[in-house]
Formats: sequence, C-alpha cells, structure tokens
Amino acid sequence: MSTPQYQLLYWPTIPGRGEYIRLAFEVTGTPYIDTQTVPAITSLLAAGSTQLGNNPPPFAPPMLQDGPLLISQTSNILCYLGERLNLAPKDDTKYHVHQIACTALDYSDEVHNVHHPVGTGLYYEDQKEEALRAAKEFTGTRVAKFWGWFERVLEKNAKDNQGSEWMVGKELSYADLVVWQVVDGTKFAFPKAAKRVLEDCPLLVEHYERVKGLERVKSYLESERRLKYSNGIFRYYEELDL
Amino acid sequence: MSTPQYQLLYWPTIPGRGEYIRLAFEVTGTPYIDTQTVPAITSLLAAGSTQLGNNPPPFAPPMLQDGPLLISQTSNILCYLGERLNLAPKDDTKYHVHQIACTALDYSDEVHNVHHPVGTGLYYEDQKEEALRAAKEFTGTRVAKFWGWFERVLEKNAKDNQGSEWMVGKELSYADLVVWQVVDGTKFAFPKAAKRVLEDCPLLVEHYERVKGLERVKSYLESERRLKYSNGIFRYYEELDL
Repeated sequence: MSTPQYQLLYWPTIPGRGEYIRLAFEVTGTPYIDTQTVPAITSLLAAGSTQLGNNPPPFAPPMLQDGPLLISQTSNILCYLGERLNLAPKDDTKYHVHQIACTALDYSDEVHNVHHPVGTGLYYEDQKEEALRAAKEFTGTRVAKFWGWFERVLEKNAKDNQGSEWMVGKELSYADLVVWQVVDGTKFAFPKAAKRVLEDCPLLVEHYERVKGLERVKSYLESERRLKYSNGIFRYYEELDL
Repeated sequence: MSTPQYQLLYWPTIPGRGEYIRLAFEVTGTPYIDTQTVPAITSLLAAGSTQLGNNPPPFAPPMLQDGPLLISQTSNILCYLGERLNLAPKDDTKYHVHQIACTALDYSDEVHNVHHPVGTGLYYEDQKEEALRAAKEFTGTRVAKFWGWFERVLEKNAKDNQGSEWMVGKELSYADLVVWQVVDGTKFAFPKAAKRVLEDCPLLVEHYERVKGLERVKSYLESERRLKYSNGIFRYYEELDL
C-alpha cells in the first residue's frame, strides 16, 4: 500500500467543517490521511511555524496537504479537490457548483452562530439567552429561506438538464455533498425545525435520500470513520429546536 | 464605446460585499456596468424568475453577469475574475490567494455579526444589548486575531518571495484587495479598535497605504463611484467601538 496523496487536518472528535472534505474523498473512493491530532494542527497554526514550507500560515483548519502544497478554507479546498476528483464540471458551470457550495457553507456558519451569537471564544452556557433569540430567528425564517432555495435550485436544474437529480448539470458534484451534509446536520441539531421545513421541500427530501443511498456514502456512514455529531457546528440543544 | 463585458449587480447606496468586486474591476481598469437598482436584483431573486437563462437562481447579491453566465457569492466571483483580470497567479498558489480572500471575507461576516448577532432579519435597534456583548468579544479578541494573521501572511510572503510587498507571490492579487477593504471598513466602523490593533501590525499598515496609493485605486477612491460607508457591513456605532 502506498501512502495516500492527500492529507486532511482537522480537529478531533467532531465532524465539523472537516466533514465537507471527507465526503469528497469518500464518495470518490479516494484514499486520504485523516489527521485528527491537536498538535499536528497547532504546530502549523503557531506563529513562526517552521513546517509551512513555501505556504502562507493557515488561519484555522480544515487544512489540506497535497505534496508541498498546504491550503485551508473549506470552500477553497473543495474547489481544489473538485477539479482533481471529478466532483465539478470542467466548464464555467463549475462556478455554479461553487456558488451553491458557498451558500450551503454560509448556512453552516449560521447554524454555528445560533449557539454562539456573541462570540466563538465564549461557551454556549455563557450566551444562552442570546442563543435562544438567535434560534427563534433561525428556526423561524432562516432554515426555510435556505432550504427553499435548495429546492428551487433542484427544480431549475431538473428543468434545464432533462430531469437531472443533482444540483448542477447531470453529474454529482461537491455542491450535492455540502447540501446533503448541512441537511443531515440540521436533522440532528434541529429535528423539529428540519421536519417542518422539509414538508415543503419534496425535491430536497429525495435528493437527501439519493446522496445517502450512494454505495460509497452508505458504507462510509456505517463505518467508524464517520464521526458522531457532538460539540461541533451541529449540536442538539432541546431548548433551541423551536 | 462598446458595452462593458461585465455587469455587477448589488444593492444600492452601500459598498457592502459589492465593494470587494468593484475593487477588482477598478484596480485593473476593467470597464463594468454597476447595476445598483433593487428591481434588477429582486427580479433575479424571485422564485420562478424567467431571466435566469440556464443559470441556477442566486441566493443573494452580489451577482456577476458575463454574457449568458450569471454567478453569485463574493468569493466565487473573485475566483472567476481573478483568473480573467490577472488578479491571481496561474499556478497552485492561486489557492493561497483564495484562502486569504476567504479568511478576510469571514472576518467581514464577523463584522456584520457584531451589529446583527441575533439575526439579519431584525434591526440593530432590536438587538443592541446582544450587539454590545458581541462588540466586546470582537474588539477585544477577534480583530487582533485576524489582523495579526494578515501581518504573519505578509511577513512570511516577504521571506519566501524576496521581500515581496504583497500577500501572495510577487504580484498584486485579489487577496490584497479584500484585505485592504476590510481594514479600510474597520477603520471607519471601529476607529479606536483599528488604531489599537494596527500598532502591532507595521507590515499591514504599510500594505494598507500601498494599496491605497495605487494610481487606479487612488482615483477610484476620489471618484463618485466609491460609495460612502453607511448602513451596510461597516457601520459606525460609537457604543460598539470599545
């Protein structure tokens, strides 16, 4: 067995933003090193790190190492891998894939903001009141706004591409993976809100099951490589699921 | 005069996220149509819009129209234009440019979150208490964390590229423009915090003046095309500048 070409570096124990990258590897059957140790990450984040080679310092994980190249930022890594793992078209519609992935990642940031409205440096317990207000806004309008848009993207693409069942063009892309992951995470963190909103999104429901049913995704989800939701972006606090 | 190839669509009266795109056009002397009318935008955002051609619906502006192609998401548009306007390298260091731009845009989102911690759908006046707590966290730790990182990026790139004065490699890229714009916006919105943090960032201070001094940037900033900061991402509320 040769060493895999790609190394993902992300915090241990949580799926978090690392999961958007993992899914790209898993769905394409691409071998990768999944480094989830804190020192490996903090040594790259440290001021004056000597391990960076000719790369700029990363601001935060996830990071991707491919030979001498080290890059970070989730959407940026997906753009890089999309081209290499055939998870994006070659023509300009690759910018549609990226647009949809970026929007789903914005949604992911809004999910995080619900339990951390005041600041990422504080604990949830220190901003519970603010979180409750943020949750009202989020479950009351934001989930439906984003998911209604996912639904419209699916509807439009089916119309433009002879009944395609994917987000862009006729092939699976990383846009499908990111959208799937944010829906899955929300089903965990806000089960009541997710159920309610999905009632108006029949295409998104089908899309969710379609991605989940892909052979490689299925076996990944059943494996120990798939980390359980816990204390990351998608957290279940009963009081916030309105 | 022929019609410009590129059309930017963004909300009127605020620089907002449109500004990151405008700077790319301005610094390269690229003609562009700057559409700042609400109906032009809302008609593209409307469910079932008939003006989309073969493009997916956008979620929000800024949007870029280039011939039949319509794309949105600020970082995505910059990626597209970076390649076409020579504001990004051709080799894999273009992913470093994108990484830095994405991080500066994350910072931009955090700025917005200071005055809208509970939700973008509510007015600042309805979340002033929460905003004050968010401002403490932001001015106390976040500005220094991001700007200290910008400083380290400049320092590292100067070391790797024979004293280069830009963020990546030896040429100006859209990473420089986005970083410049977030520093400029913060100087407006949080003047005290900006001044304090810049005391520890001598390279960033020089970089800021360098971009501002570029001939095309200079004449753009003096023109009427440069919108004044008002009620967008970068807002001045005296009580939040701690």
